Amino acid sequence: MRAKARASGVIFRPHVKTHKTVEIARMQHGGAVGPITVSTLAEGEFFADAGFRDITYAVPIALEKLDRAAALARRIERLNLLIDSEPALRALEKHGGPFDVFLKVDCGYHRAGVELSDPRGMTLAAEMARSLAVRFRGLLTHAGHSYHARNAEEIRAVARQETACLTRFRALLSTIGIGDLLRSAGSTPTMSVVERFDDVDEIRPGNYVFYDAFQATVGSCRRSDCAVSVLATVIGSYPDRGEAIVDAGALALSKDLGPDHIDPHFGYGIVCDLDLHPLDVRLVALSQEHGKLRAKKPPAVGEQLRILPNHSCLTAAMFDTYHVIEAGRIIDQWHPVRGW
Amino acid sequence: MRAKARASGVIFRPHVKTHKTVEIARMQHGGAVGPITVSTLAEGEFFADAGFRDITYAVPIALEKLDRAAALARRIERLNLLIDSEPALRALEKHGGPFDVFLKVDCGYHRAGVELSDPRGMTLAAEMARSLAVRFRGLLTHAGHSYHARNAEEIRAVARQETACLTRFRALLSTIGIGDLLRSAGSTPTMSVVERFDDVDEIRPGNYVFYDAFQATVGSCRRSDCAVSVLATVIGSYPDRGEAIVDAGALALSKDLGPDHIDPHFGYGIVCDLDLHPLDVRLVALSQEHGKLRAKKPPAVGEQLRILPNHSCLTAAMFDTYHVIEAGRIIDQWHPVRGW
Repeated sequence: MRAKARASGVIFRPHVKTHKTVEIARMQHGGAVGPITVSTLAEGEFFADAGFRDITYAVPIALEKLDRAAALARRIERLNLLIDSEPALRALEKHGGPFDVFLKVDCGYHRAGVELSDPRGMTLAAEMARSLAVRFRGLLTHAGHSYHARNAEEIRAVARQETACLTRFRALLSTIGIGDLLRSAGSTPTMSVVERFDDVDEIRPGNYVFYDAFQATVGSCRRSDCAVSVLATVIGSYPDRGEAIVDAGALALSKDLGPDHIDPHFGYGIVCDLDLHPLDVRLVALSQEHGKLRAKKPPAVGEQLRILPNHSCLTAAMFDTYHVIEAGRIIDQWHPVRGW
Repeated sequence: MRAKARASGVIFRPHVKTHKTVEIARMQHGGAVGPITVSTLAEGEFFADAGFRDITYAVPIALEKLDRAAALARRIERLNLLIDSEPALRALEKHGGPFDVFLKVDCGYHRAGVELSDPRGMTLAAEMARSLAVRFRGLLTHAGHSYHARNAEEIRAVARQETACLTRFRALLSTIGIGDLLRSAGSTPTMSVVERFDDVDEIRPGNYVFYDAFQATVGSCRRSDCAVSVLATVIGSYPDRGEAIVDAGALALSKDLGPDHIDPHFGYGIVCDLDLHPLDVRLVALSQEHGKLRAKKPPAVGEQLRILPNHSCLTAAMFDTYHVIEAGRIIDQWHPVRGW
């Protein structure tokens, strides 16, 4: 991803919420520190402590966190905040600032952001450009609707929409005299399927660093690209009903349903390391500490299975430690930051 | 729950996996230590450190954890393990023991356990009674299928099944000379709806200590009985599409779907503290750090909302700290154990 960003001449600002570790963030930048994206202030503070100096906090900020954000901003070169509303701009102004700020743009996901078709977005941008409390750095979008795609071709259509939306918005703003805005885009599916990054100035993919069962199913990657898994032990086996129980439940895997828009019975992850076709084994239910498998030939008590999680970001956040494996041996342990 | 157990003359052994704190475990026993149930060895070790001496580890043990379990058992008066298979019994025998052991019985949930109708359950019980490696303490079941009920009447039917199954199994075993077995039952719905505990020797409810949106919907409790909630801030408001975004996502609430067998569009928790009928606000989607609300009149940026989680056990495990509130003031902070 880094090589593709460099070849395309765009800023590479990976989202570190997927792994939340200093070790992997440095790997993403070839062993050095570099620009990153975070999803919580706790992540921002943790990575600042580790020497990261250029951080985008890519969730619209809760207004009671402005003091903490300002304190973090003073410790590093740049903390970019995200806003998409007048009340947020007013709160930044009341606080004083100046804050580095991106305007969040909705390119079709309809979670957060202003829409290109809505004149209030233009009005807000104009006020941001005028405000003394903010340094208006650019337009930021997240094509989360790429996760609704069913194959790489559908993802590519969302990728074109993602960058076109930013480019059009920037062109509109230049007609009212607002220039020099960065276009920042990011979603692992869209960043994975394109050959190069055109019509954009910065990319922020996160999940690509691990991938997962979901990404492999929608077409972002191959299953063999997935880099994180949960090792579980069979603690019950019931061949009569074609089921087995493993010691990985909702607190080990998360209850993310994965690509259920492609397969409503996908289950809670993909079981590997079995001499079975993966489709023969489904992780059909999770309770707090139990996972239930259904299989024609269920594994025996004591067997260990590797499970590719549906959503590696959520699963990784459940653990205090990564066991880092090379050629079948544990060579290191890494510890993610947690909380908010 | 404690008073009802005492009035019924049964052992009260609450499951502490719901809260994972010493403070609440002591409250459950009226300020003292007492018998408890745990779902991980990490919980067992944590509560042993805090003085709890009589612990049931109510998940069939993964065989590679026997050394750790034996070490824990040596530190306290009694650690009860759970088995439901020959390979597990063989592993206990190979390890040496002696271990205190319950036979896990399947009373209809079909997760773990031996079935009353299956002669292999009787055979395993007979081998446990003969084995020098185990002290066969009793029969343990969990009526997890009470969570499929739609009202208190349906829960009561499961409650009768739960205790009847243990009583019949015990009677069968007494015909082959195996006596003195405790009947241990536990699920919050079944323990909540009965007036007293008949036909059982020990109860192990856990979730009752907090309850949650799920329990209030299936009929275990009233909504006003729910004791744990997540305070979230509105970080985006989009009245045109009747939506708002809060800063509580999948890592704050868990992706548990709640009582979707009663309402497929239930959403990811119940939003309170709004001057709106609760049905007017739905928490329709969660991503890692965003929660999306749908409402006729969405709350404004900066408003704070209290969310009753769908599954309080999973939600509580997401946090490092409980803020304990009395009469609107934070009076204490408690810290749960984590991991396995």
